[in-house]
Amino acid sequence: MSLKLYELVGIDPARPFSPYCWRTRMALAHKGLSAETLPWRFTEKNAIAPHGSEKVPVLLHHDKPVVDSWTIANYLEDNFPDRPSLFGGEGGRAMARMINTFGDIAIVGGIFPLIIADIPNSLAEVDAAYFRKSREARFGRSLEEIMANRDTAVVAFRKSLEVMRQTLKKQPFIGGAAPNYADYIVFGGFQWARVVSPFRLLEADDPVYAWRDKLLDAFDGMARTSPGYAV
Amino acid sequence: MSLKLYELVGIDPARPFSPYCWRTRMALAHKGLSAETLPWRFTEKNAIAPHGSEKVPVLLHHDKPVVDSWTIANYLEDNFPDRPSLFGGEGGRAMARMINTFGDIAIVGGIFPLIIADIPNSLAEVDAAYFRKSREARFGRSLEEIMANRDTAVVAFRKSLEVMRQTLKKQPFIGGAAPNYADYIVFGGFQWARVVSPFRLLEADDPVYAWRDKLLDAFDGMARTSPGYAV
Repeated sequence: MSLKLYELVGIDPARPFSPYCWRTRMALAHKGLSAETLPWRFTEKNAIAPHGSEKVPVLLHHDKPVVDSWTIANYLEDNFPDRPSLFGGEGGRAMARMINTFGDIAIVGGIFPLIIADIPNSLAEVDAAYFRKSREARFGRSLEEIMANRDTAVVAFRKSLEVMRQTLKKQPFIGGAAPNYADYIVFGGFQWARVVSPFRLLEADDPVYAWRDKLLDAFDGMARTSPGYAV
Repeated sequence: MSLKLYELVGIDPARPFSPYCWRTRMALAHKGLSAETLPWRFTEKNAIAPHGSEKVPVLLHHDKPVVDSWTIANYLEDNFPDRPSLFGGEGGRAMARMINTFGDIAIVGGIFPLIIADIPNSLAEVDAAYFRKSREARFGRSLEEIMANRDTAVVAFRKSLEVMRQTLKKQPFIGGAAPNYADYIVFGGFQWARVVSPFRLLEADDPVYAWRDKLLDAFDGMARTSPGYAV
């Protein structure tokens, strides 16, 4: 089969960092599928426009585009039903929708102000300029101002993980005894931070830290061996 | 079959109000099971101590006690497998654990300070005194002080529902096209508030409001027709 995945990178084409692309990377690995990586940068809108998207991940399956990490996960689940399930049934697929929203709001949204000014360091000049301009317009402040109080903001972020933390005291993964897409949704955000920022998000005695460690080790250490900071 | 359910009540034995008991009530209805209600009050510890619990819900199945709403939901799922599923498979059962924690922390924990001083109004004198003493010790403040700024605190509570709100813009229920235990977990908290407090938690144009309305109507309006405030 032919699978290709557009993934967000910066200067180093072998250092993918989008939280959403990492959700898809982990989902593909869970299904035992390998995809050819097509490195993609913020300013390369023209490369994916023909596939009907302005953002990555974009998956090409026999050249048919599948756009958006949630849609891709469902596509993989439906088109590769004989491989390990990403959701563990229809109830899990439905509930993963809420975990996907938690991943977007609490994880990606929570981490963004803690690492935002580190991101341009990974980007080529033209992409760094694009990133700065678009994000500063969105937040109405400079990247440095957004990130200025991260040493105190990270405390609130850690507190916001309490729902996850208490869950992980009861079972090893959000998906149960073994990880599934619910875990990859959340892990994508942590891996994004790990790739682009040396900032320490989690304390070592946090159950969320131990959980992240297990996902860094998953699939022969795929996420751990991908270039990043050891935080 | 013989099913009996200890449920928390106050002055009116036909007005159950515990968020956890409502999770179980909805779960029983989902399974098409009816249980005899055993009204239970805060100070009646002796009535349930023989069943190995200090709290309700306690379900008796042929006199065998099953304690704790999460354990009861799993018990019902495992012992009545031919009836409608509460979790929609093992993935849903696992992910519902995190939604259960969200229900405990964000919903019950979020609503508590908004209605806490209203609760004694529903209780007999001895139970009201117990409730006040134990909760004031836990919070280190009077019930009235805890609730004093609820008009501003409710704004933060509504904001904390964003994960749920965005989910409900994508699908009718947390459990998907139809409600399942994931919905009952969260609904239990709203129904608890509705039974004991006239305080308005949700704005009418909130997708969470519309979702709650549908659950009030479920099972022939079981929750709506149970005594409470029309808020």
